Amino acid sequence: MIISMKLHSTKEEIAQVKARIEEFGYKVHSIEGEERVVIGAVGVGDVTNCLESLEAMPQVEKAVRISAPYKFVSKEFRQAKTEIKVRGTVIGGDEFVVMAGPCSVENEKQILESAEIVARAGAKILRGGAFKPRTSPYDFQGLELEGLKLLDKARRATGLGIITEVMSDRDVPMVAEYADILQIGARNMQNFSLLKTLGQCGRPILLKRGMSSTVKELLMSAEYIVAHGNPQVMLCERGIRTFETVTRNTCDIAAVAALNELTHLPVILDPSHATGKRSLVPALSRAAVAIGADGLIVEVHPNPEKAMSDGAQSLDPKQFAQMMEDLKPYIELWKRRPELAAQHVAV
Amino acid sequence: MIISMKLHSTKEEIAQVKARIEEFGYKVHSIEGEERVVIGAVGVGDVTNCLESLEAMPQVEKAVRISAPYKFVSKEFRQAKTEIKVRGTVIGGDEFVVMAGPCSVENEKQILESAEIVARAGAKILRGGAFKPRTSPYDFQGLELEGLKLLDKARRATGLGIITEVMSDRDVPMVAEYADILQIGARNMQNFSLLKTLGQCGRPILLKRGMSSTVKELLMSAEYIVAHGNPQVMLCERGIRTFETVTRNTCDIAAVAALNELTHLPVILDPSHATGKRSLVPALSRAAVAIGADGLIVEVHPNPEKAMSDGAQSLDPKQFAQMMEDLKPYIELWKRRPELAAQHVAV
Amino acid sequence: MIISMKLHSTKEEIAQVKARIEEFGYKVHSIEGEERVVIGAVGVGDVTNCLESLEAMPQVEKAVRISAPYKFVSKEFRQAKTEIKVRGTVIGGDEFVVMAGPCSVENEKQILESAEIVARAGAKILRGGAFKPRTSPYDFQGLELEGLKLLDKARRATGLGIITEVMSDRDVPMVAEYADILQIGARNMQNFSLLKTLGQCGRPILLKRGMSSTVKELLMSAEYIVAHGNPQVMLCERGIRTFETVTRNTCDIAAVAALNELTHLPVILDPSHATGKRSLVPALSRAAVAIGADGLIVEVHPNPEKAMSDGAQSLDPKQFAQMMEDLKPYIELWKRRPELAAQHVAV
Amino acid sequence: MIISMKLHSTKEEIAQVKARIEEFGYKVHSIEGEERVVIGAVGVGDVTNCLESLEAMPQVEKAVRISAPYKFVSKEFRQAKTEIKVRGTVIGGDEFVVMAGPCSVENEKQILESAEIVARAGAKILRGGAFKPRTSPYDFQGLELEGLKLLDKARRATGLGIITEVMSDRDVPMVAEYADILQIGARNMQNFSLLKTLGQCGRPILLKRGMSSTVKELLMSAEYIVAHGNPQVMLCERGIRTFETVTRNTCDIAAVAALNELTHLPVILDPSHATGKRSLVPALSRAAVAIGADGLIVEVHPNPEKAMSDGAQSLDPKQFAQMMEDLKPYIELWKRRPELAAQHVAV
Repeated sequence: MIISMKLHSTKEEIAQVKARIEEFGYKVHSIEGEERVVIGAVGVGDVTNCLESLEAMPQVEKAVRISAPYKFVSKEFRQAKTEIKVRGTVIGGDEFVVMAGPCSVENEKQILESAEIVARAGAKILRGGAFKPRTSPYDFQGLELEGLKLLDKARRATGLGIITEVMSDRDVPMVAEYADILQIGARNMQNFSLLKTLGQCGRPILLKRGMSSTVKELLMSAEYIVAHGNPQVMLCERGIRTFETVTRNTCDIAAVAALNELTHLPVILDPSHATGKRSLVPALSRAAVAIGADGLIVEVHPNPEKAMSDGAQSLDPKQFAQMMEDLKPYIELWKRRPELAAQHVAV
Repeated sequence: MIISMKLHSTKEEIAQVKARIEEFGYKVHSIEGEERVVIGAVGVGDVTNCLESLEAMPQVEKAVRISAPYKFVSKEFRQAKTEIKVRGTVIGGDEFVVMAGPCSVENEKQILESAEIVARAGAKILRGGAFKPRTSPYDFQGLELEGLKLLDKARRATGLGIITEVMSDRDVPMVAEYADILQIGARNMQNFSLLKTLGQCGRPILLKRGMSSTVKELLMSAEYIVAHGNPQVMLCERGIRTFETVTRNTCDIAAVAALNELTHLPVILDPSHATGKRSLVPALSRAAVAIGADGLIVEVHPNPEKAMSDGAQSLDPKQFAQMMEDLKPYIELWKRRPELAAQHVAV
Repeated sequence: MIISMKLHSTKEEIAQVKARIEEFGYKVHSIEGEERVVIGAVGVGDVTNCLESLEAMPQVEKAVRISAPYKFVSKEFRQAKTEIKVRGTVIGGDEFVVMAGPCSVENEKQILESAEIVARAGAKILRGGAFKPRTSPYDFQGLELEGLKLLDKARRATGLGIITEVMSDRDVPMVAEYADILQIGARNMQNFSLLKTLGQCGRPILLKRGMSSTVKELLMSAEYIVAHGNPQVMLCERGIRTFETVTRNTCDIAAVAALNELTHLPVILDPSHATGKRSLVPALSRAAVAIGADGLIVEVHPNPEKAMSDGAQSLDPKQFAQMMEDLKPYIELWKRRPELAAQHVAV
Repeated sequence: MIISMKLHSTKEEIAQVKARIEEFGYKVHSIEGEERVVIGAVGVGDVTNCLESLEAMPQVEKAVRISAPYKFVSKEFRQAKTEIKVRGTVIGGDEFVVMAGPCSVENEKQILESAEIVARAGAKILRGGAFKPRTSPYDFQGLELEGLKLLDKARRATGLGIITEVMSDRDVPMVAEYADILQIGARNMQNFSLLKTLGQCGRPILLKRGMSSTVKELLMSAEYIVAHGNPQVMLCERGIRTFETVTRNTCDIAAVAALNELTHLPVILDPSHATGKRSLVPALSRAAVAIGADGLIVEVHPNPEKAMSDGAQSLDPKQFAQMMEDLKPYIELWKRRPELAAQHVAV
């Protein structure tokens, strides 16, 4: 931590601030300029509280944290990408993994058809919501347990892994029984009760970035899960909320590259929620491969116009198959992306 | 709903769109311009799905909802302000209500002292967190049940009502046993499992606006609670997330005035989280009274420099007492604010 | 400046960074922690370049400026509020000053009527655009010179001061000939050519905050004008751009309080652009008085429904007169706002 | 336009609104629902004023524009991509064009070296600022005319085209004399005086998106230039301002794909300003090629640590050469991107 004192602070004021820092277990060093004193604090302690406490002192101009506020998820803790194995597929490894399927599980026919469509085109994981977070209490809220059972049927029919959302700590055991990957939606990224429960659920997690969460907050939420016992976490960029309305959200694609520098966790991009527009999904998916994401999660529906949710951003079967075909040469280049070499050396 | 077709749509395309709208139970009317056809849909149905479904059709340029997506919380449903009674105090009535206290319950001495300080200065409700949502898993997470018991002690000592946060649907019964008002934090505004559970908790709710939620989304979240059985909801503006960093959040004070036009639910302003800076709290509190909020929720700590959280934005006892004194003439003016007359006539 | 080195930097790397800092004329002091070295730089130099240069060095983790990047506009440079005299009215003094009038000067009848309406209700300055910044090239762009002449006529008829916008450095001499105050619109807040020209124009300036500009950037733009020779600058909060759409912009009212701490320049609030809705203007205007703004700039039109621009946010004559009446008791309280006492002591 | 009346409007109110619309030259058609009347307006008129005027009427709930607010720049006006020829290079054609060079022209040696470096690596256009928009009046403001002359020298030495920024309508003739492309910076995207002047400057324009401007506003600003006589405009996505701080701005890469659907103007991406971090530039540049941008504008400096501005985001010569090499296979794929086929058919 670096603490900058206000101009013309007195010796007593400086001494009070130093004493407060030392109470938190840090060592202090000070730099005395002609106008201003700056104090450095070194050591291990409760950084957040210490910073808040110092900022509450009237003599302090600014208190800044230098070290990252997370440990287990950082590149400094582990250089090699975390590999997550799901039914024979490895996320974070040598394969670019596509997860695809409808927004909601609607009925048996729809989900079985969806599973076949996405499997045939090359996806390895089937997505589909049984519990749906809906802004309005009057909208379709999902089939819940019945939906989970239908996903299980689709898995048995196709061999695909299953990813589905869980919205409450109460439901974690039930969802973990059926799903291969538990998805945490953007609105729950800082549902800390849920995050803690995931630490013990025994399943890999896909953690979506909150719509107004920073990259650092996303990493802190992942740290919650890892610190509570579950290292199998992947992150998902799905667009953030800005003033722009031409797309549903604003895809912060550079966050994928930034995350690849900061963390060893795999990073997945969701081009469907990021844009909200089917026609933009293929181009953005190419960009996701090119920038070095580890995979995609894409909405596909057998008949988007009849979808019970997110129809406008769902690809139809033909569009999805075409996109998967078009992505192939990009995936070939992805296998030898320059950052990879740097990572291997670093390991 | 208004559906605008793409330029030069064919008759067949228009007929398909009309048929789709009718499947959702609406009546259609169309306007034929020289270049473009616009279709109006009137009636009652599943609006969200219908809009999404139409936007998924390639012939549709734009589909816009006209009516508000909420019912029970709207001014059209009820003109008179909802009054919420808490231990002899009425929120939403003729009194401007101040809730105050520390960010976290830290120990018995701290919370009893805080309660006395805020009661003496004129607050009617004591705030204090027993469950704390913290960005980092390594920060103080609250005293939980022990904290609730200490709040109860403070209530018995002072007669103040108690407001405290609940973070998980699992904890609702326990928190409802101790608290007079359940607070839902900004990060949980769209935790729909939690919102549904609150519908049956038997306690008034203070629902904080999410840090990147719109006013309409706030109203939709309130609608969840009301539609699930609990009409005792008050809303809280606590600042939204923007690019500005001179304050912790950006206080969207005009949202208070906008809410007073849109809803009958009481509106509370939190100047502490909105600014993150103690020195700005008194001026913003005056503005909150002037614009017509129904109350404030303010962080006060016996010794902010020693607070375990939010010290920088907590008032000390003297500052809080001074602020309460300074607010008095503004509260006198508040009692005859012009919008009030309009409301009474409307009732 | 504080420069934090990357973990495990070598002695050579540290020496290189120190040398680079010294090239910019600063003295360096370093703090050596167990894991990390932090360097403080003290003195006077080209801070921005130095920071950018250091951040370009691979060994540097972070480089942070401590001192404010502006001088003349800061409270440290001058404690007493800058007073700006315009035809017998003093902005920044003991009077709360209201500027009002239509968005655009449309014709002689409209501007003369507007002037009489706002003068009668107690405004001291007439606003009205002769040069209009319009998003579309096909919208009404203003009457230009003819509009300035009509404003002059309205001034002579009523004795009001005149404020009007200037959009190009080329037009500054012409607008300065007619206007008492030159207004710089939000879109031109960082039009640095224009700002430099204003330094020599001999008229007071009202500088509107850019729609996505921070408070610090607003102060830097004011610094441009002052540093180029014109200390008569007032600042204007007119709402910033966020994701919220219930209002046209989001009024960052706490910025008014923050500015009052940071600068001695008067601060004006524009409730019309901040909300975009006539019905919200009176409540927000009360809040502006309560928080301690020095004045308002409000859109008023003899017949808003026939206005050539901004009709939805313009008050009609009766509404404006009512609002001015309702503001009176708030202005009485404003004259003895607590911050004022603090300011006088500080002087 | 679609105008939705308030619930329970009377016949007189509806008639007033219709009459107002007709005054603007539109034909009206109304849809009468059980609760609400909706009016469609068809024809050609001053849409912005008409919408504003209607929203000023108390009976109107909402007034929405359906048709796009721009003409010449839209895909409906022209399907084939606009091709811009600059010294033998065609932007918007079959070649992916890279513009590169330092942030500022600093001196003869630096700009000549830069030109050679970027030419050798395959760039076709040299960037370099002679007029610099700087937030602080105390920062380096550029060499102005002397800088333009040095750029001319670099052009003669290498054959590269020259792109440089112009900040004021006053300077347009001088800059147009030296530059092959005039760059309009983000802060001037809505400097309408400047945009009008560019209509007659006789040079191609690179128009940067404002840091909080929407895609539609960017197109409207381009429409200004085209409508004033200059069809040679290319657009530039350079990141928008959001709450995220891990990058300097947030690159809205999906805007590139959206622009390719909406306009025929070429689209360039600036990965340097979008990220502010040298290490993220190569990955983002690959994504820009993959999503279908027409080119890049990249900051490169012979010695970034000694740069007078933007050092942290400038590539050094070796990094730039490596990136250009790595982009080659992506550019091969770019030549047969699927959207291109769609475009050719459409033509």
